[in-house]
Amino acid sequence: MKKDKVNIYDIAEMAGVSIATVSRVMNGSDKVSEKTRKKVMEIIERESFTPNVFAQGLGLHTMHTVGILVPDISDPYMSAAVAWIEKGLSENGYDCILSCSGFEPEGKQRHTEMLLSKHVDALIFLGSTYAGSGKSTEETEYIRKAAAQVPVFTINGYVKGDNIYSSVNGDEEAVYEVTKKLILKGRRKPVFLTDSGSYSALKKRKGFERALRECGIEADESTKIHVENTIYGVRDALLSKKESFDAVIAANDIIAVGAVKYATAAKRKLPEDLEIVGYNNSGLVRVCEPELSSIDNKTEQMCRDTVKRMIAVLENGSTVENKKVVISCDFVERGTTDIGG
Amino acid sequence: MKKDKVNIYDIAEMAGVSIATVSRVMNGSDKVSEKTRKKVMEIIERESFTPNVFAQGLGLHTMHTVGILVPDISDPYMSAAVAWIEKGLSENGYDCILSCSGFEPEGKQRHTEMLLSKHVDALIFLGSTYAGSGKSTEETEYIRKAAAQVPVFTINGYVKGDNIYSSVNGDEEAVYEVTKKLILKGRRKPVFLTDSGSYSALKKRKGFERALRECGIEADESTKIHVENTIYGVRDALLSKKESFDAVIAANDIIAVGAVKYATAAKRKLPEDLEIVGYNNSGLVRVCEPELSSIDNKTEQMCRDTVKRMIAVLENGSTVENKKVVISCDFVERGTTDIGG
Repeated sequence: MKKDKVNIYDIAEMAGVSIATVSRVMNGSDKVSEKTRKKVMEIIERESFTPNVFAQGLGLHTMHTVGILVPDISDPYMSAAVAWIEKGLSENGYDCILSCSGFEPEGKQRHTEMLLSKHVDALIFLGSTYAGSGKSTEETEYIRKAAAQVPVFTINGYVKGDNIYSSVNGDEEAVYEVTKKLILKGRRKPVFLTDSGSYSALKKRKGFERALRECGIEADESTKIHVENTIYGVRDALLSKKESFDAVIAANDIIAVGAVKYATAAKRKLPEDLEIVGYNNSGLVRVCEPELSSIDNKTEQMCRDTVKRMIAVLENGSTVENKKVVISCDFVERGTTDIGG
Repeated sequence: MKKDKVNIYDIAEMAGVSIATVSRVMNGSDKVSEKTRKKVMEIIERESFTPNVFAQGLGLHTMHTVGILVPDISDPYMSAAVAWIEKGLSENGYDCILSCSGFEPEGKQRHTEMLLSKHVDALIFLGSTYAGSGKSTEETEYIRKAAAQVPVFTINGYVKGDNIYSSVNGDEEAVYEVTKKLILKGRRKPVFLTDSGSYSALKKRKGFERALRECGIEADESTKIHVENTIYGVRDALLSKKESFDAVIAANDIIAVGAVKYATAAKRKLPEDLEIVGYNNSGLVRVCEPELSSIDNKTEQMCRDTVKRMIAVLENGSTVENKKVVISCDFVERGTTDIGG
């Protein structure tokens, strides 16, 4: 069969490279070695190749796109983080496409593959659910597979592997510090509320229990309450709790708001009768009345830092030195505690 | 130049159709006429064509993807809506990719083009900002251009044009009804708070002013306050307002929460001294104390309905009869009003 005009397939074949590489050369990407660039350019010039409309329609000129996976975009922490990432990428000339994977392994894997099929330059996994519980490496195999194709960045969860860059919070330390302050102030019956057993939830719990042990308080099943991630669910769980408690550390702000609603229903005065600490310092803290004391996990900083490292990897091809960055948290005191910000 | 094996370009050329059409035939899409399908299939069989890995890598087999544009994903209404759309699409075997365009014309246009370049089967424009102010058709020209390529669905804004399907709320009616109830109950100094001049904000204002006029209250500049979309911004704007007011209708829940914070700061009792109505019935209404009365614009229903209509258009190729669907709103009474839900 005869063809009048060479296409990008032909150029790739003649140069012995992939069409993605040809496309990168045409787009002036830095990711191609000088040697490869020269070879491809020579063939492009020799064959008088100009990209045709088909190739353009096929998206070969639409690189500079990053895929973001989130479990649930309706969560205020997730949606705020996506907004920050998107802003950072946009400032660097990158677009983003977002995919909601849910919390189940099947969905995580399927959505990862879907994003890879869209020719993203890199993937961001946002949320500690992607790092699994840490019990087996099998849980995160899909992330390592993806990292064989493009650089992968995880936010709020650590995953070990080549081409994987993680940013995590100093969750354990932050919860440890705040719990200790509450205990030293006289709170002898603190409880930890969580809705998940994720990487980050486990670290928070660890910090909580370390503070209790150091202060001679037993950390048992009564000091940890598993709740659903809804305001009324938490309120009702606390209303039906038999053991008394005088301080609440919540794994996120929604759970903490549920504890505030419990205090209103149970007529317990905040912060005199009960102190409540949220986590994420999200948009909810100011809506709440009294306004919610919360651990600020620096969403903006973490997202900006991730984008910065991503640009370094993508545009300089260099491997970033520090593959695991730990960003420490700040405690922000508002109306639900009185321990000093 | 000789080629051993035909590719999808060749098939398209021989059949005299686009490669998108060849791809649709191979994927068993209903969008191809019987005649075209037959012709393409005959050539595929005659040439013993099997899709090669290049074509797969180029995304020809990754249709079933819908692009969603939002101005700001950190807005709780937007993120809740995206979660509902994503759920509906996923149940129908479609993936979604999301793009944050911001509120400026340039961003809207650029992100629309970016999503189209990703071979989406359809586009959803979420939020009334995309419909513009209605002052000129130029504002929405980019949407009509997109609709020349794929079916377009707008949520919460009406855009006229071929291949464009809009779902809007009965915003005017909803605000009219609630304002009238407040006035009939004795509130003679209601104010309307908005942060935007979008399609939907203008309709809400229209409903508000109609109720005032009908009840013999003058609707002038003092009854409409333009605020920024932040809790403290609204609180401070109300604290510095000279004219007195006894009821607040807010264009969204964030603004309404700002009014609740104003009431706390000004020591005005809710709902006795002041009544406040929010809009969207978002995740914030239960966080607020007292919990916020709000107009429920049926986000879930609107998103599910949009997905249903989209599937009908994509899979049956049929044009949906009713191109503009109006979904009426419900008023949900909680602690910030006492007019009867």
